[in-house]
Amino acid sequence: MKLGVCWYPEQWPEALWASDVARMAALGLRFVRIGEFAWSRIEPEPGQFEWDWLDRAVDLAHAAGLQVVMGTPTATPPKWLVDAHPEILARGRDGQLRGFGSRRHYCFSSDVYLEQAKRITALMAARYGRHPAVVAWQTDNEYGCHDTVVSTSDAAKAGFRRWLADRYGDVAALNAAWGLSFWSQEYRNFDEVDAPFGTVTESHPAHRLDWQRYSSAMVERFNAAQVEILRAASPGRDIVHNFMGLFTEFDHYAVGRQLDVATWDSYPIGFLGQGPFTSADKARYLRTGHPDLTAFHHSLYRACGRGRWWVIEQQPGPVNWAAWNPAPAKGAVELWGWEAVAQGAERMSWFRWRQAPTGQEAMHAGLNRPDNQPAAAWPEVAALAAGLAALGPLPARGQADVALLFDYDSVWAVQSQPQGRDQDALATAMAWHTAARRLGLSVDVVPPDADLAGYRLVLLPVQVVVDDGLAQRLAASGAQVLAGPRTGSKTRDFAIPPALPPDGLQALIDIRVARVESLPPGISLAVGNGGVVTGWMEDVEAGEGVAVQSRLDDGRGLWFAAGRAHYLAGGVDAGLLGRVMAEVAAAAGLAVQDLGPDVRVERLGDLRFLFNYGPTAVDLPILPIIGSNPVPPAGVAIWREDA
Amino acid sequence: MKLGVCWYPEQWPEALWASDVARMAALGLRFVRIGEFAWSRIEPEPGQFEWDWLDRAVDLAHAAGLQVVMGTPTATPPKWLVDAHPEILARGRDGQLRGFGSRRHYCFSSDVYLEQAKRITALMAARYGRHPAVVAWQTDNEYGCHDTVVSTSDAAKAGFRRWLADRYGDVAALNAAWGLSFWSQEYRNFDEVDAPFGTVTESHPAHRLDWQRYSSAMVERFNAAQVEILRAASPGRDIVHNFMGLFTEFDHYAVGRQLDVATWDSYPIGFLGQGPFTSADKARYLRTGHPDLTAFHHSLYRACGRGRWWVIEQQPGPVNWAAWNPAPAKGAVELWGWEAVAQGAERMSWFRWRQAPTGQEAMHAGLNRPDNQPAAAWPEVAALAAGLAALGPLPARGQADVALLFDYDSVWAVQSQPQGRDQDALATAMAWHTAARRLGLSVDVVPPDADLAGYRLVLLPVQVVVDDGLAQRLAASGAQVLAGPRTGSKTRDFAIPPALPPDGLQALIDIRVARVESLPPGISLAVGNGGVVTGWMEDVEAGEGVAVQSRLDDGRGLWFAAGRAHYLAGGVDAGLLGRVMAEVAAAAGLAVQDLGPDVRVERLGDLRFLFNYGPTAVDLPILPIIGSNPVPPAGVAIWREDA
Amino acid sequence: MKLGVCWYPEQWPEALWASDVARMAALGLRFVRIGEFAWSRIEPEPGQFEWDWLDRAVDLAHAAGLQVVMGTPTATPPKWLVDAHPEILARGRDGQLRGFGSRRHYCFSSDVYLEQAKRITALMAARYGRHPAVVAWQTDNEYGCHDTVVSTSDAAKAGFRRWLADRYGDVAALNAAWGLSFWSQEYRNFDEVDAPFGTVTESHPAHRLDWQRYSSAMVERFNAAQVEILRAASPGRDIVHNFMGLFTEFDHYAVGRQLDVATWDSYPIGFLGQGPFTSADKARYLRTGHPDLTAFHHSLYRACGRGRWWVIEQQPGPVNWAAWNPAPAKGAVELWGWEAVAQGAERMSWFRWRQAPTGQEAMHAGLNRPDNQPAAAWPEVAALAAGLAALGPLPARGQADVALLFDYDSVWAVQSQPQGRDQDALATAMAWHTAARRLGLSVDVVPPDADLAGYRLVLLPVQVVVDDGLAQRLAASGAQVLAGPRTGSKTRDFAIPPALPPDGLQALIDIRVARVESLPPGISLAVGNGGVVTGWMEDVEAGEGVAVQSRLDDGRGLWFAAGRAHYLAGGVDAGLLGRVMAEVAAAAGLAVQDLGPDVRVERLGDLRFLFNYGPTAVDLPILPIIGSNPVPPAGVAIWREDA
Repeated sequence: MKLGVCWYPEQWPEALWASDVARMAALGLRFVRIGEFAWSRIEPEPGQFEWDWLDRAVDLAHAAGLQVVMGTPTATPPKWLVDAHPEILARGRDGQLRGFGSRRHYCFSSDVYLEQAKRITALMAARYGRHPAVVAWQTDNEYGCHDTVVSTSDAAKAGFRRWLADRYGDVAALNAAWGLSFWSQEYRNFDEVDAPFGTVTESHPAHRLDWQRYSSAMVERFNAAQVEILRAASPGRDIVHNFMGLFTEFDHYAVGRQLDVATWDSYPIGFLGQGPFTSADKARYLRTGHPDLTAFHHSLYRACGRGRWWVIEQQPGPVNWAAWNPAPAKGAVELWGWEAVAQGAERMSWFRWRQAPTGQEAMHAGLNRPDNQPAAAWPEVAALAAGLAALGPLPARGQADVALLFDYDSVWAVQSQPQGRDQDALATAMAWHTAARRLGLSVDVVPPDADLAGYRLVLLPVQVVVDDGLAQRLAASGAQVLAGPRTGSKTRDFAIPPALPPDGLQALIDIRVARVESLPPGISLAVGNGGVVTGWMEDVEAGEGVAVQSRLDDGRGLWFAAGRAHYLAGGVDAGLLGRVMAEVAAAAGLAVQDLGPDVRVERLGDLRFLFNYGPTAVDLPILPIIGSNPVPPAGVAIWREDA
Repeated sequence: MKLGVCWYPEQWPEALWASDVARMAALGLRFVRIGEFAWSRIEPEPGQFEWDWLDRAVDLAHAAGLQVVMGTPTATPPKWLVDAHPEILARGRDGQLRGFGSRRHYCFSSDVYLEQAKRITALMAARYGRHPAVVAWQTDNEYGCHDTVVSTSDAAKAGFRRWLADRYGDVAALNAAWGLSFWSQEYRNFDEVDAPFGTVTESHPAHRLDWQRYSSAMVERFNAAQVEILRAASPGRDIVHNFMGLFTEFDHYAVGRQLDVATWDSYPIGFLGQGPFTSADKARYLRTGHPDLTAFHHSLYRACGRGRWWVIEQQPGPVNWAAWNPAPAKGAVELWGWEAVAQGAERMSWFRWRQAPTGQEAMHAGLNRPDNQPAAAWPEVAALAAGLAALGPLPARGQADVALLFDYDSVWAVQSQPQGRDQDALATAMAWHTAARRLGLSVDVVPPDADLAGYRLVLLPVQVVVDDGLAQRLAASGAQVLAGPRTGSKTRDFAIPPALPPDGLQALIDIRVARVESLPPGISLAVGNGGVVTGWMEDVEAGEGVAVQSRLDDGRGLWFAAGRAHYLAGGVDAGLLGRVMAEVAAAAGLAVQDLGPDVRVERLGDLRFLFNYGPTAVDLPILPIIGSNPVPPAGVAIWREDA
Repeated sequence: MKLGVCWYPEQWPEALWASDVARMAALGLRFVRIGEFAWSRIEPEPGQFEWDWLDRAVDLAHAAGLQVVMGTPTATPPKWLVDAHPEILARGRDGQLRGFGSRRHYCFSSDVYLEQAKRITALMAARYGRHPAVVAWQTDNEYGCHDTVVSTSDAAKAGFRRWLADRYGDVAALNAAWGLSFWSQEYRNFDEVDAPFGTVTESHPAHRLDWQRYSSAMVERFNAAQVEILRAASPGRDIVHNFMGLFTEFDHYAVGRQLDVATWDSYPIGFLGQGPFTSADKARYLRTGHPDLTAFHHSLYRACGRGRWWVIEQQPGPVNWAAWNPAPAKGAVELWGWEAVAQGAERMSWFRWRQAPTGQEAMHAGLNRPDNQPAAAWPEVAALAAGLAALGPLPARGQADVALLFDYDSVWAVQSQPQGRDQDALATAMAWHTAARRLGLSVDVVPPDADLAGYRLVLLPVQVVVDDGLAQRLAASGAQVLAGPRTGSKTRDFAIPPALPPDGLQALIDIRVARVESLPPGISLAVGNGGVVTGWMEDVEAGEGVAVQSRLDDGRGLWFAAGRAHYLAGGVDAGLLGRVMAEVAAAAGLAVQDLGPDVRVERLGDLRFLFNYGPTAVDLPILPIIGSNPVPPAGVAIWREDA
């Protein structure tokens, strides 16, 4: 794995640059990411270009032995461009313009901006596409950050109408699919359709879901245009984009398919406060981040990159953008590095080389302080580099035993019609992922169209639509299948399936969801053999041959099983979920053990990793080759299986 | 009492209709409500009508022996109408348009929409007004739902100016009535008056109050226009409207006076989470609804219909529109039915016949599931129908011993100048109603202009304006009178009365409110003989002949009494309110007993009803003719007094 | 000290006026404030004036021996003026107009309104400027109330661009100062700069800070224009403005420098709920207000008036504008009066003479009730007047031993880039002030440019910029200096100082802030010798000669000391802050004692004051000349030191 750093020469006196790249190399870094916010420096006036400074920066890096990942600067169009083409601005769900003065101030549906983005991309690609230092391109920066996937601009409305026409063919089909005789919502033609916002009460859920699907498609369109240009002008280089954490507003698998490598920006502490965790967990993991959040995303983006993935931004210290910004525990920066290694990352770079004295991110730590002295992360980066050198070539990450289906469309479906205010498909998927990891299982997060061959356990926490392909792959797989409530609860057009849910599973297990209820916080339903159901409960009718493994105290069936297929009819607590999953995993022939809340393990070829996110040291039965025994808080231990 | 169901043939294949009406009749249903959202199906293009499908549906119902309650479809103007006349849209308090895409997207002040509503009403009335199946008309649907009474459109502003001119005559009178020399708010003419929103800080409270009164008058105007058409074209049919629960944005008594029958939409569980109840009560009554919320509204709408009232939408299972949507307890659907019987409802119909697979209400239960199999409510509906048949003709509901004054204008007055953020006149009225019901008393909720003859106890929880008529009726009544704080606290023009509050009561009890304080949550003032005051406390000066029945520990008088008149100077806890009310009721010669939180009783002629909302069974000293002994949770028992 | 009252003759029948002024005089009042909201009565139509009523009111007051403080009515331009010049309205941060219908509906950047304000001011000054009764002028009313300092009108945007051009000279300097190469935010000219609102995510913090500085300058401009007119036309009269509590949106020192006297509007109970206090403190001081909030503001406005200050509005009973409005404890109105005496106020007047029956403030108590009978405050006002007469001439308030720097620019700096969501420089300053007062210390709140000579202890709770002048005055002072975290954390251009914080203090104490973290609520870091750090913690590197007086349990230094200089690196709890401050005060030679939470003491020449804000009586070792022993809850005791 190559280590690197995000470098912003345009923000510093050129006198510093030479020492910057020399010190990077000395620290063991092998590449820089550069350029992704520099449009106003590259093209300070429309059509007037200043490439020299960037040429010199790239050449300096190259001379120091550093590779370059070059970013297209389209996330921050300059003020002159916005003033010349104000129609490129997005509008919020409230219809208000989202103006210049921060970043991501463009609408994905704007053809005008798409042309501008292609123009600057082509110019950059022409200039640096064949530079020997340049090994990769990053398109734009963090698509969708700050809630920028959805826009209600005129361009977006027009695009949506075209998208609907493509999808439904004629308006009668749209009226039928959405059931628009309800509340006299029928349209006479696609031009009558508006954005599903600003209505008197809830707009139509299928309208909202399709708007999200359309918006996601516009992100794909925008990215594809840059990829096409870069492929042509910069042959042999990887094309990447930096995805984010806890973010589901577009279909990352679809964008990932356009790329060579999926990368993401990992801020374990920054994300902790935003994640679906209890207050106790947020306090417990204040300085390490949650034990599974990072691994979930590593695995997810490994899927998005079809095996190839990087961490392109890694947290080096306190960030600036969370509500509160604690410092990492001593060791945590190194721990996060090894976690990426264990999951098979090809590269990892820290954000950023040096803390800036001004601007929105002035309080964001870097590898260097604003006074250019090494910051707290420096020795941990050095230790990681040394450890990697000591380990030598790393084995490849193989397929895990467990596949967990995560589906963006299901996230949007639940958002479109939650039925219970706190229903959250991402949170549920993460809770299932945690349950599996706590049992010592390695998990591949996979898309719903994934090849399931080779998995021994397939988890479907919230797979709202189970289409024929998935149903066939589940049936063909020899794996144990564990599905949660809402599985198969809608058709692709967002109708309740004619034979009731779980549509697509009924060939595996003869059950039918007769009634659904959601439950407010504070209400829990006791389960006969321990545990509780909260939030969601379904009344299920089971056919012959279906065993009821577990029931509520009120008599309703909770855990239904038939052959390899298992269905949970309610939202179960973590302990019960773990017990169910352990039984199903055992049926799949997998060895499990309860690692407790703090310790996690991974394997990479013959390497074994233990990560200690907890407040107390952990004893090992072995002397690790990296790390110490016992493993301290925020510590890592690595050994070889055959050692 | 006749049972029925809300039926939406336009949403289903016509092939289902015949079996639908046959199964309705077999279940014991006697009528359908139909048509109230079907404008786009009736007039798919402007001026092009498709009546045939509706003709066939009505005829089918008729042939099956079902009566029809026909709805005018004005709650959902089609998209073509909105596009042709965008000025019909309402604007929110923030001035933003409230667009198409859900329902109720019209402004009550729009003359353009009023004409369109009259046009479609006249056409429907002409076609179905004399159809033998049609027994009643419902105007529009749920006036005001989704906060649609108040609009700030240009039409609303113009209408308000006219309304002010009518009310005050000249602008000097307006300036004087509102006291507009305060903060230089004086107007030179009515055209200078704007909507009382979007001001820098709080707008003038009388301005807001009059805006609400005006907005209420616009609802009256809109309804009256439909009523006039329907009366002329459909002689002999009842004209009704379906009111809502926990909704006070217009004067329902005034609209009710235009109707033959008041109906309402009763969702005991849907309303529970929105009601002014403690978390503990919301958990306790999760699956039954609150023991008094439904009865309060039954009684209120009985007043609105001057004795004639229906439940036109009754909850059959989980709904879709609350934050969380639990399923009813087994028995609750039947219990709710008997509760309407006990309160003298003429009809009750469930919403809806069959759960829809799509749309905003796809997750709303019906009597049938989306796969057309009977849903959980089915057997309870059948049981209710059978019970009603067994009971035979029902006695009439007579006048209760207790009148509780509930006044929409007082609700708005408190909202216009709450003085304590959580002051809520509806919540207070409901708490007083609960206190009386818990004592075993039957209560008539009545308007402030009600004839009080025959009542033995009159409750005024929050009667802000006590006008001469009410003062005289209180004086003429022989009833005990118990008034709460804020009674008589304002004149009709929203001034503090010259002789201080309680204006209009001082002839009965010589007291004067010298000072008012509101208290934040968490503060409670101890009362000498037990209980506490929270939220609100007045310093009262009492004349000779006024007894202070109860004092705060700080010495201030709390319960003042003189002859038949009682005044409470603070917001007392439920226990203390019950003790005060019990004493006053005893003075009125009424027998009371504490039924506890869960059990409620009602009487209908010689029939006696006991409803058990609690989690434990209740023993009866008698064998009921409907229900069992003991009465299980969510159970009902009915017997005859002389049995 | 002279007592007075705010009088609104325009709101009452003229028949009441003569008795009003006679009763004022009889109560011991010596002046009235008048006229500040009367524009619509003075100029009911554009250019048509009605002065007679005001002439008569002023003459009546004069004849009764009452002085007059005359207000300019510019806080409430009449409707005709707004309609004629709608461009005078402000716009909110959301861009929406803030309309007529309450007060303060003007934009400080509007030249049109500035001219109108000058016009009416000149007319009033011409008419009353030399009236013998008129002793002072109040400009406008409560600048900034209801969040009216910041506007985003076109006038504001244009003004901001000019202000930027003045401040930075050319746009390259602006780009450099703000570091706008970050995120391609560079401007090509000042006309490209917009308001820092409505951006996709956080706008640039220096942009927001400068916008606040500009907005503050517009308040100064507006006030200066009136002052200039009044000085010329009304020689020898004091010019004052009434500032508010808990309000920091403009630089009050700068406006104060234009005035002769700073006055403020003191509502101890109204402010309590809005203040940065715990729920327990809000309950404990429900009826007295917080023990230090009032004193903090007295001291602050004493600084704003360079020693001369008044309370121009004093709370007489429940107000109307807080979320909840409790009544004062018996004695509290008198206590608040003595507190102003002890802090050296020249005048104090109550708001208002008589409670109004209508309008936004109808529920606000006065000295008289709406029925013109004395309200609850009346006897306490009489007692205060009698006490003052008994005391005779009052000594002057001398300089305190302790200076606490409070800096508006620092408040805005923290708001512009809080880094932890709940960081609040005013709350921190008030907590430090409380800690000092609880030790029995008298405190002068002072601006950062204050002369520090004579102080023995200088406190810098949150002084974000420590400029050269302040650094030199701190160095030249012989005082002990105690600085909190964030001190010297930014340059004036809002950059992290090149040598890291605490910039400007490093000559006194050789430390360097290497890293900053903020901590969410619920997280506390244990301190070795007791106490905790919450909210904020810095990693500090200390040079030789710096002692670490206290450390966190995790080893990090918390309290650094070198010579007279002390630095706290974290947000410490109240107890620990008190212990640190006691040690530093002792080093300064000051005698301290822990007065507990409820009791406060002040000195005024030889007079000694004890205020009891608590629920229990306090024993004195002396018999007071005002008050009793023991001192009851909400009681005051006054004695002479040499008595």
